[in-house]
Amino acid sequence: MRVLITGGAGFVGARLARTLLRRERLDGRRIEQIVLADQAAAPADLLADRRVQGRVGKLLEHASMLRDEAFDGVFHLASAVSGECEIDFDLGMTSNLDSTRALLDALRHRQGRSGGTAAPAAKFVFSSSIAVFGPDPAYPFPALVGDDTLPTPQTSYGAQKHICEHLIADYTRKGYLDGRAARLVTVTVRPGRPNGAASSFFSGIIREPLAGEEALLPVDPSVAHPVASPQSMVDGLVAVYEASREAFVGRSALNMPGLNVTVQQMLDALAKVAGPRVRALVKPARDERIAGIVANWPRGVTARRATALGIAAEASFEDIVRQYIADNEGHPTALKGLKELA
Amino acid sequence: MRVLITGGAGFVGARLARTLLRRERLDGRRIEQIVLADQAAAPADLLADRRVQGRVGKLLEHASMLRDEAFDGVFHLASAVSGECEIDFDLGMTSNLDSTRALLDALRHRQGRSGGTAAPAAKFVFSSSIAVFGPDPAYPFPALVGDDTLPTPQTSYGAQKHICEHLIADYTRKGYLDGRAARLVTVTVRPGRPNGAASSFFSGIIREPLAGEEALLPVDPSVAHPVASPQSMVDGLVAVYEASREAFVGRSALNMPGLNVTVQQMLDALAKVAGPRVRALVKPARDERIAGIVANWPRGVTARRATALGIAAEASFEDIVRQYIADNEGHPTALKGLKELA
Repeated sequence: MRVLITGGAGFVGARLARTLLRRERLDGRRIEQIVLADQAAAPADLLADRRVQGRVGKLLEHASMLRDEAFDGVFHLASAVSGECEIDFDLGMTSNLDSTRALLDALRHRQGRSGGTAAPAAKFVFSSSIAVFGPDPAYPFPALVGDDTLPTPQTSYGAQKHICEHLIADYTRKGYLDGRAARLVTVTVRPGRPNGAASSFFSGIIREPLAGEEALLPVDPSVAHPVASPQSMVDGLVAVYEASREAFVGRSALNMPGLNVTVQQMLDALAKVAGPRVRALVKPARDERIAGIVANWPRGVTARRATALGIAAEASFEDIVRQYIADNEGHPTALKGLKELA
Repeated sequence: MRVLITGGAGFVGARLARTLLRRERLDGRRIEQIVLADQAAAPADLLADRRVQGRVGKLLEHASMLRDEAFDGVFHLASAVSGECEIDFDLGMTSNLDSTRALLDALRHRQGRSGGTAAPAAKFVFSSSIAVFGPDPAYPFPALVGDDTLPTPQTSYGAQKHICEHLIADYTRKGYLDGRAARLVTVTVRPGRPNGAASSFFSGIIREPLAGEEALLPVDPSVAHPVASPQSMVDGLVAVYEASREAFVGRSALNMPGLNVTVQQMLDALAKVAGPRVRALVKPARDERIAGIVANWPRGVTARRATALGIAAEASFEDIVRQYIADNEGHPTALKGLKELA
């Protein structure tokens, strides 16, 4: 089988590709080829695998390939991020809405074009986000946002993701493809450097201390938020792909499970795994702008539909810290703090 | 002020135009011009008013005029209907999604283009539909669908309307326009002839007997459904236009009130207003296809947000029958049954 991963050179996309290559099979079938489509080149370890083909270009250009090439499945992870979409409305509409629709239309036209017998509808897994949940001032969040919580997005990113969920549901209902939209929670611990995202600190307060660097905490430790590790997110996307159509009943979107955790619990887990001297590298430095943004995010999720598919996040944040440490055993600078202070 | 009505030659659009001309004012301002944009020519009585200008063409062409002409407000009523959208997917996507987005973008670009000082955001009232409500087999309807019921559309028409609601909410949040989406219930009694719509009988079982003709009833009299008269729907759209932005809080869509009524209650009202001999012209003729479609429709609505704006449907179906009779006093054939049998 042939699989397309958009955003395949990114952090989640590359990890998904490595996971699929290791599994060798998806949905009961041998994986012959994985195409990683992205604006950036895919990591060298992936391109070294003979089953992997990297394609660099704009997403709208990648969509056109779907009209001419048969893919059995697509993981559509490419996306402009929340902050970009607020600053550049057209960028968000093009990257997140038009590009997704172009992918859906390409699959639809391919599906309708196999001379007499209908080609099987391609499976299509879309990375949506819990950003579809508002909060609407007239409709405050429940304590935990669930599959049945009314989405009232209050960012362009959230609106675009939710609109795509409805497009995917309708293309699926019509039989043009077999789509599923997985609402991802915040993925932590991300590798790399702090970025401008308001959620950056959810990784920074673990990653920087483990590297022996100070990290600033812009919010109160009582802030609660659902998180998941990179690997549980990838495993969840694979499980969403492999689930039967019937499991989705009349809807294609579902919440992905998260570990509902407070910042305090994250810091306590860091202390337990890496010791108090590493933990002490996190310094309170309240940032009203970031605190204000985060105050509008869900404090936790439930994920009844995904849980019924056997998908789970970690049971404790310590497991998430340990996953990051295991991922970085080969990168001494990433664990300098752990080695020297623990 | 200048007002654009898309679908302005249609049944609801023309009635809205007549209502606005009679009021002379909208939102506290004198109406200087009403442009009726439609694929068909507007009725002669409207075109005879010097304040009215009719424009015949495709909606996507009408959208372009918004870039060059200043409109203070838009009622966007033009739409491909549910049955058409199920048969012709591209037609629905173009007519209901692309055209709406073109209107929104035209208003956005006009708003951003007034050399230094921002032009006030145009008010934009969108005719959405209770077709946004599924039902999803995994999420059965509550007894009454309300503003907070989760929309899980199960038709392309419903999906497109709901997607437009989210576009309008986000363009509004960004300040590009001041949009409101009113989810209309079934309008009855519609004039004219039976059409292919599954909802056609909700008008036919009143209209045909009043004209002295037999009408077939394709569903059980216990079927319940929310309805509103043409005039209460038009008055509601005007009230939605005139409501303050603040009244919508963080959301732009609301359910419009309906009279939650059973077919039996409709028939009883007909008997009371027009007599048993007129009522007797309705003959049971169950149609499994129509009964099956209607079984998936909401059995009633609540409309908390619209009610708070002072919007109301009729209190009894007799009032709706009487409105149809009053509308048709000048059309003897429309009331032939009433005159001869009552």
